[in-house]
Parts: sequence; C-alpha cells; structure tokens
Amino acid sequence: VGNITVGNYLLARLAQLGVTKMFGLPGDFNLGFLDLVEDHPTIDWVGNCNELNAAYAADGYARVKQNSLGVVTTTFGVGELSAMNGIAGAFSEMVPVLHLVGAPSTSQHKTRPILHHTLGDGRYDAYTIASKQFTILQTALVNKHEVAHQIDEALTVCITKARPVYMTLPTDMVHQEISGERLKIPLTRQAAINDPQTEEFVLDLIHERVKEVGGDVVILVDACVIRFDVQDEVNEFLKQTGFPVYSTPMGKSCVNESYKRYGGIYIGTITHPLAKERVENAKLIISVGSLQSDFNTGNFSYNIPIRRHIELHSDHTKVQYALFKDIGMKHLLPKLTERLQHFYPIASKLPVAPFTDLVPTSQENDQTIVHAYFWPRVGQFFHPKDVIVTETGTANFGILDVPLPDGTKLISQVLWGSIGWSVGSALGAAFAAREVGKDRVILFVGEGSLQLTVQEISPMIRYGLKPIIFVINNSGYTIERYIHGKHRKYNNVDNWKWTSLLDTFGGNMEQPYESYSVKTRAELDTLLDQSSFAAANKIQLVEVIMPALDAPLALERQAEMTGKGNQYATVI
Amino acid sequence: VGNITVGNYLLARLAQLGVTKMFGLPGDFNLGFLDLVEDHPTIDWVGNCNELNAAYAADGYARVKQNSLGVVTTTFGVGELSAMNGIAGAFSEMVPVLHLVGAPSTSQHKTRPILHHTLGDGRYDAYTIASKQFTILQTALVNKHEVAHQIDEALTVCITKARPVYMTLPTDMVHQEISGERLKIPLTRQAAINDPQTEEFVLDLIHERVKEVGGDVVILVDACVIRFDVQDEVNEFLKQTGFPVYSTPMGKSCVNESYKRYGGIYIGTITHPLAKERVENAKLIISVGSLQSDFNTGNFSYNIPIRRHIELHSDHTKVQYALFKDIGMKHLLPKLTERLQHFYPIASKLPVAPFTDLVPTSQENDQTIVHAYFWPRVGQFFHPKDVIVTETGTANFGILDVPLPDGTKLISQVLWGSIGWSVGSALGAAFAAREVGKDRVILFVGEGSLQLTVQEISPMIRYGLKPIIFVINNSGYTIERYIHGKHRKYNNVDNWKWTSLLDTFGGNMEQPYESYSVKTRAELDTLLDQSSFAAANKIQLVEVIMPALDAPLALERQAEMTGKGNQYATVI
Ligand SMILES: Cc1ncc(C[n+]2csc(CCOP(=O)(O)OP(=O)(O)O)c2C)c(N)n1
Ligand SMILES: Cc1ncc(C[n+]2csc(CCOP(=O)(O)OP(=O)(O)O)c2C)c(N)n1
Ligand SMILES: [Mg+2]
Ligand SMILES: [Mg+2]
Repeated sequence: VGNITVGNYLLARLAQLGVTKMFGLPGDFNLGFLDLVEDHPTIDWVGNCNELNAAYAADGYARVKQNSLGVVTTTFGVGELSAMNGIAGAFSEMVPVLHLVGAPSTSQHKTRPILHHTLGDGRYDAYTIASKQFTILQTALVNKHEVAHQIDEALTVCITKARPVYMTLPTDMVHQEISGERLKIPLTRQAAINDPQTEEFVLDLIHERVKEVGGDVVILVDACVIRFDVQDEVNEFLKQTGFPVYSTPMGKSCVNESYKRYGGIYIGTITHPLAKERVENAKLIISVGSLQSDFNTGNFSYNIPIRRHIELHSDHTKVQYALFKDIGMKHLLPKLTERLQHFYPIASKLPVAPFTDLVPTSQENDQTIVHAYFWPRVGQFFHPKDVIVTETGTANFGILDVPLPDGTKLISQVLWGSIGWSVGSALGAAFAAREVGKDRVILFVGEGSLQLTVQEISPMIRYGLKPIIFVINNSGYTIERYIHGKHRKYNNVDNWKWTSLLDTFGGNMEQPYESYSVKTRAELDTLLDQSSFAAANKIQLVEVIMPALDAPLALERQAEMTGKGNQYATVI
Repeated sequence: VGNITVGNYLLARLAQLGVTKMFGLPGDFNLGFLDLVEDHPTIDWVGNCNELNAAYAADGYARVKQNSLGVVTTTFGVGELSAMNGIAGAFSEMVPVLHLVGAPSTSQHKTRPILHHTLGDGRYDAYTIASKQFTILQTALVNKHEVAHQIDEALTVCITKARPVYMTLPTDMVHQEISGERLKIPLTRQAAINDPQTEEFVLDLIHERVKEVGGDVVILVDACVIRFDVQDEVNEFLKQTGFPVYSTPMGKSCVNESYKRYGGIYIGTITHPLAKERVENAKLIISVGSLQSDFNTGNFSYNIPIRRHIELHSDHTKVQYALFKDIGMKHLLPKLTERLQHFYPIASKLPVAPFTDLVPTSQENDQTIVHAYFWPRVGQFFHPKDVIVTETGTANFGILDVPLPDGTKLISQVLWGSIGWSVGSALGAAFAAREVGKDRVILFVGEGSLQLTVQEISPMIRYGLKPIIFVINNSGYTIERYIHGKHRKYNNVDNWKWTSLLDTFGGNMEQPYESYSVKTRAELDTLLDQSSFAAANKIQLVEVIMPALDAPLALERQAEMTGKGNQYATVI
C-alpha cells in the first residue's frame, strides 16, 4: 500500500466495512469527492431526492446490513441541516450512520467569507455545534497528518457504539495524499472486554438468583439485541437454557416468532392478558438490550419490580438494585449460557402460550378492511426472506400482532417516530436486502406519512428496486385522531391519486411498475393470492382503503395514555 | 380585556401583527394548541406535507407580507429538526419567522422520561441548543407569570431584527390562564432611534464627502433595504436627490426597474460592462443595506475602494474607514434625503445607461429554448402585480437580466441557496400575495430542485391557490455541471412525468389545474400569449425543456469562480 488520497482512504475504509452504497445529494462543496465515489469499483453513489430522505436511506441500509454502516453525504449548511432529523433519529434509535459533509476549503475556513450556504456572519462552526447534539463524535478532516487516524477512530466509534458520527471534508482535502499504511489493519466492531473479576462476580450473582427462584425465569428481548449485534448470542442462550422468551415492540423479529418457547410481545398494560400474566408472574425476568421508551413499554406500564429484574445491556449490567458498570452483554451472554444451561430440564418445561395463539382477528363479516382483518391477512403473505418496514402510525402497532416467519427482518422507528422515515428507509433497506440474502422488501406506510417523503420512490424505480409498498389510506392522521382531535381538520390529509405515483415518478424510466387499489377484503385477498404479485419482480404500490376511525387495539390504548400525559385540558 | 389562555394570547399577538396563516404539521405535542388555531376567527391553519416545506412556506409568507412575520409550528424533535434548514435559511437571509414547537408537558420536562421523539438519554434541551445556532432568541413558555412578557419580547425581536426566533410551548401550558392586559398595547417594529449627536456628525460627514466629489455619486441598493423595511425611505431619497441607482441581485425589485435613473444589476466582474464602468467610476458609492456574499457580489469581485464607499446598514453606518455603531439607516435616510436633495440639479444629470438597454437576447434563430431566449421572453409576460419566486440554479441567474415591471415583487435565496426552498416559499407567497394586493405568483424552479419539495404543490391545490409553476427541465443539475462534473452521473436527475404532477396530487380535489410542456420557442410564445394562461385563474405547471448545457452568462462566470475557490484539484 503506497500513498492514497484522503478521499480514497475514506472510501477504502468504508469498502472494508462492507459499504456498497452511499446516499446523499451533490452540492458544490462535495462534488470533488463525488468524482471518487462515482469512479470507485465497489461503492456506488445513490443520488436521493433530498437530504432528509438520504439520511433515512442510510439508516435503513445500516439496519438491514448489520455489522456495516450507512453513509449519507451532504453539502455544507443547506444539505447537512436538511438531514439533521434523520441523523438525530439514527442517534435515538442507535443506528451506525456516517454523516459526511462536504465543506468549504481549509483556507476559506480560515478567512470565513460570506459564501453561499453560510449564515452571513462568519460562523463556520455553527453546523458542527448543532450536529454535536445528535452525533457521538464530530471530526473535521483539515490536517493531512491526522486524517487517517481521525477516519479510523470515527468509523470505529460509529460501528461500535451504533450511533451516528459527523465528519466534514473540506473541498481541498479530498485529493491530498497520505500514507495508506494503516489500511492493512482492518477496523473492527469490538465490544469492550469485561473485567474478568467483576464479570465472574456478576455471573455468580445471576446464577444464585436463578437458583433461588428454582429456574422460574422469563427472558425479555429488546432493541439493543439487534443494535449491538448479540442476536446470535441471545438465541444460543435461549436454545441452551430453554427459558420462555418474550419481546418488546423494538425487539420484535430478533427471536424467531415460530420458536415454541416464544410468547409474543410484552408491552406493559397493553400486553395480551395471557402473555402479561406469564411475564409479570415470573419470579425473575432477565431483560436483554432493554430500551424503555413510552411506545415500547405501554407508556411505562411495566409491572416488573426491580427486585425481580436482571438487565443485560451493551455497556452495563444490573442485577436487581446493583449496577455493574462496563459489564457488557456481548461477552457476558455466552458465559451466562454456560452457567445456566443446567436449568434446561426445568426451564424448558415452564409453560408458554405460543404467540400464534394470541393473534386477534376480526370476527365481523363485512367487507371493510379493518386493522383486525388486515394484519393477520398480510401475516399469511410474508415469507422468511422478507424485510418488513413499518411506519409510525397504525402500521407500527398493527404489525405487533403478526407472527413473522423465521428469519424475517422487521425495521421501524418506535422510539424516534419520525413520519416519512419508512420511505427513505425502505430505499436503503432494499439495497441492503439484496446483499444480505433477503428477498422482498415490504413497506407499510400511512398515506399521511408517505406525503412527507414520497419523492424517494423515484430512486427506487431508477435502480430497479422492487419493494411492495402498502399505502394505508385512512383519510388522514389516524394515530393522531386517537390521541387528540378525532374530527379536527388538522388531522386530514389530501387524498392524492396514490396509484398514479409510480407512473408520475417512473413513467419515463425503463423499469416496470404496477399499482393497485383495494377497498374490500375480497379484493385484498385476491391480490395477495396472486402469484405474480407475490413474486415482487417489479416495484408495486397497493393503496389499501381503510376507515378513518379504525386502529389496532394496542394503538387505541397507547393513544389514550399519550393523550392523558399531554394534559391538553378540555378543548377537544 | 380579561383573562386569556396562553395559546390564545400568542394567537392574539400574531393576529395583531397581521398573521393570517400558520404553517406546519400536527404532532401529539402541539395538537392542543392546534385546536385554538383551527377555532381562531382570523388565523388559519395550513397543513403542510412536511416540516421543511412548512418552514419554507413561512419564510415565503413573511417575505411577501412585509412588516408581518411567518409562523411555522412543529412538534418536539422530529418536527422541529426537520424544519431546521428552513429556519437557518431564514436566519441567513434575514426573514422574520417564528418557529413554534409543541413540547412535552412541564412535568415531563422535569422527569424527562424516554418519550417518543426523544434521544433516549433524557436530553430534553438538545433541540433548543441546536436551534440556538440558527435563531436570534430562544424562549420556553413554562411559567405562566412570564409567558406574556416572553411572547412579546420574542415577537418584537423577530420583526425588528428580521431573524427567526424559537419558542417552545409545553402541552399543559396551552390552556393556562393569564392576564390579557398587555394586549392593549400593540407590538411594533421599531428601528432603534439614533443618538442625535452621532447622527448629526454622520450626516455632516456624508454631506461633506458628497460635496467633495461634486455630487458624482451612485447608489447601490441591496438585500437589507427589503429586509429592514426601508424601501419607501430609499425610493424617496432617490426621487429627491436624483442619483443614479444600481441594485445587487438580492436587492433586485426594491427599486422600480423602469425608473429612468436605474441602471441594472451590479455584481462585480460579472456586471454588464456599461453598468460596471458606471458604478466603479463613480467618485462615491453609497450602498444601502449591503450584503456582500459570494453570489451577490460576483464572488467578492467588487471594485469599490473603501475610500470611495459609504455604507448604510440597519444598525450601523460606515463612511469610508470610519465605523459608526448604532446609527441605523431607517432614521438616517429621511434626514440624508433632506441634506442631499440640493444636489438634484447635478445628480439628476449624471448619465445612466438604462437597464432595459442592457438585456441580452439570443440572436440565433433555432427553436431551442435557451436561457438567452427564455428570460427576455418571460420578461414580457410579467405584470406589475406579480410575485416572482426563483430557485437557486439557472433560474436565480436568469432572472437578473429581466427588467421587472414596476411593483413586481421578486423573492429568492441568493445567500442561503437551499434548493427546494422556492416551492414551499411559493406556497407561503401565494397566501400573502392575496393579502397585499398582488395578483399572480410565478415560480421558476429547476427540475432538480423541484424534486426536493415537490409535495408542497398539494396544499397549493387544496387551498385553491393559482401559481404558475415553470419547471426548467434541463436534464439535471445544470448549475452544478458548470461548477464541476459536467458529464458526471451524480449531476443527473430522474426525468419525471412533470405534467402529471398536478393530476397526481390534485386529481381527487375539487380545484381546476392544467399542465403544459414546451420545447420550442414557438410553443413557449404561443402559451405565453394565450390569455387564458396569463389570466392564471387556476394552478398551472409548465415544463420548459431546455438544453443540459446552457446557462445564463452570469451563472457560467460565477460557477467558474466558485469551482476555482473550491480547489477540487485535477479529477473532473
Ligand atoms: C416528522 C414528523 N412530523 C410529525 C409527526 C407527528 N405524527 C405522528 S404520527 C402522525 C400521523 C401519521 O399518519 P398516517 O401516516 O396517515 O398514519 P395512520 O395512523 O393514519 O395510519 C403524525 C402527523 C411525526 N411523528 N413526525
Ligand atoms: C438543500 C440543498 N441541497 C443541495 C444543494 C446543492 N445544489 C445547488 S444547485 C443544485 C442543482 C439545482 O438543479 P436544478 O434545480 O435542476 O437547476 P438548474 O439545472 O436549472 O441549474 C444543487 C444540487 C443545495 N443548494 N441545497
Ligand atoms: Mg392515515
Ligand atoms: Mg435542472
């Protein structure tokens, strides 16, 4: 390895980490770098329609392509600030995303002229200061003697902590030559090693607690199992110990849902009574990768006393009231498996009502597509190799009741909940899906949410991606109606010609596409049973007409609690 | 005036300031407040498709409805961060916009639970910290004894300084009762009074300088004339003194362009030679409201030595090298008019090549719609009551060569230059136009820029607004091609079915709409001459097919300089 330009050093590192797509928009401060991307043998430039959508795409790409990262490239000021909500979402939801910003040259950074895209007052650091709130590391590649180290550090932090990092690349640095020596040693995602003595102590302690309760333990898996890459460790633990397992909304799909010891979703008071009783009556609950946000916990309605709770996290462990800093689950879990596997004979006999028995279905016979009908029905449509993307709104709650086939990947934004995310995210997910051996990408998005980011359908068509997009058309912001303002005009949205969208964006392109509208159960059934539809060999959009005031049960209950918490007072 | 709720107090203040529309999206943290907006007798809620577009709309509204302000309402985290680029743009370009954010309740602010739309780590202040970079004042309405004062201060600062302010309104504060007493005294936009003695000194000094040069003065009007509301004072000054006047790109349309003493656009080395010579050879240049950004000055290529330059600003004055702090132009100008009007006999004889003589036109006879043909041609189409909105790209440069009819209002983002802005902005402008006695709103937007914010056409149709939208379809990011990467793929954009957009968004609504595509000069001429088209009694979209590598001359030259400044090095 001889000398290499700064731009190509960065690309080399990204390629090593498995990055094949970079998302974003050009702007004059990043054009020089984009030359290198366009010419790169294994990394492709994906031009998005706007920067927020690009950030969402990078987020979706990273979620599906686990153990890699997403990259979004923007231009100084206007581009980067447009992406900010997407980056903050990646922070909140713990998704590794590199935000690379093309910036004015290093000499302009010194003289700070009133360039386009500046605030007019010479504050060239304003965007970095703002970004600091939403990224775990900020670095400016301004000195060629430091950039290799800076890049390595930033990328390592990004993938290890599963959080976005912010990097500015001045125009004149792109082609500076540096040594490529460091590239010989690949970067890795390494969970910190636990202090052996503390770890031993913790293992003893947990073992003791499990013994005390005679093995009456329930496992609760959550978001950080996926984010911190301990899915294999968790599944091995479950298999060897035989404990019953439940999942939170954000943990859904990290344990196979056909697994016979899997009891479904635990979400506090919103939980199905059978599952709720089973979780809350266990003598000990071991939660793995827990993330206790309002929508992930039935509005903080867990009924799990601390003295019955053990929490395994990426960087700490809690056993009842005791905190063990820096004892992370990645290395702890395999050892815990060893310690606890002898409970298998007892643990594997503990009763679990299988998730599949709990699924609600609509008993009425009319043809309206209500949620209680829709979700079980699409559940039958899913395949093991599907990537499912659900949007905030009725979709995020509806999917909870559907048992997913083994291997299915589900992504959603239960904590951050920025509507429109799912569309950009589905674009990124669709690229990643091809690379990780997944097949179809199926998106469920409310028509209100689709309006925020609709243009991102355009690159889907351009690149021949073939998602199936279900647009839930329920005459407005239904989730909001349940929270407040049931009949308010501010909860209406324009009723677009949804089935014209693919043609409007893609009609001049070479790719095939097809749109459908279904408003009866029979129409939905017929479509889902059609093998050419299920084959997903072109991009397809399905408008699903549903009632404005119908929602999954879990949403109705969450919405009520959220509305109360907001204390809007009397006016409705 | 008795007691009033916090929400209604704010609305009462906004109504007093002439606000009739509020832009934004609902979110559960602002729904309670939106009830009040929906029920308000004179303020309407305009639901946008996304928050960035909403911020752009508020910006466009404020620009056209001078002496009022724009308001954008978003929800905590996800909504407000989406709007951030729009708010930063309003800061940079000096547009008074209130960013009102619905936030969690005051009690949640104390306990900081992991609510949806939070970062998951309890940092409830992160969004405010970020906003601080892009707003001139941040205020949280958390204490009912202070809110009236806070609201008054924030709004006064917003309109006086012509910058965005940031205000958070917790859910539970909306209906708190406070005294309405203060509402009796209206808020005003008051430029600070100048210290009389300093002002006198400055007037003497300027007078002396003008005398020294025998009245050989040229006036240069710029952005801040519009932003700080001194258009009347400037025009009066020009009329009484008779000095020749030129404008920068950002000052365009603040002086009537048919005015016989108006010589056109001064933009450094890019200026038409006749105008350039006239400005740069004047013995004294008085610039009013100057904003010297790269694109506003031909890349800082002014040839105006400081010793021949007097600058009048909103909050200071410079006479050659001498700075006079806190001497603002609003109060200085009328006095300067008095002092200098006796130069009229000389000043009014100073030669000016009228702007209308300098307009370039295409001499070739082929039918291709090139910029040199397009802009003079649409120039003939304009009316005095038009509001013209131009987007960053070829449009922002093309419009410079067109003499606008008296009274025409032009808005664009020459400094901030965030593409997509013009579409949201045109929505806001269209509402405001109706209220300030303007008639048509005519938007010129590149197809690349339109892709960022296209959905904002939807509310235009919903509310029966009737803009004429010219979409310049030149196969990609032409401005970027001129800066760097002429034939690069990253400068391509998808070729949508532009003429299907209105139907896709509006086909289910009650409003009429019509789309056209023109690719020859004859087609363009025919359309522009059609009186039903010019009447603009429905929303209309015109796809104008233009060559990928054609641009207004000023853009070609600016792009070359920008490319050089960026020092991309060799790869093309
Ligand atoms: C960026 C952003 N803006 C606003 C909101 C507030 N919000 C949450 S859900 C929702 C409505 C979603 O409506 P739709 O997509 O139609 O879903 P439905 O519940 O009707 O199925 C809104 C406006 C948000 N979460 N994110
Ligand atoms: C939000 C944002 N993203 C990216 C850019 C960089 N940029 C400036 S102009 C431009 C291309 C505009 O293309 P188009 O609207 O088609 O205009 P034209 O082809 O007429 O020049 C781009 C990408 C920007 N200014 N703002
Ligand atoms: Mg909906
Ligand atoms: Mg273009």
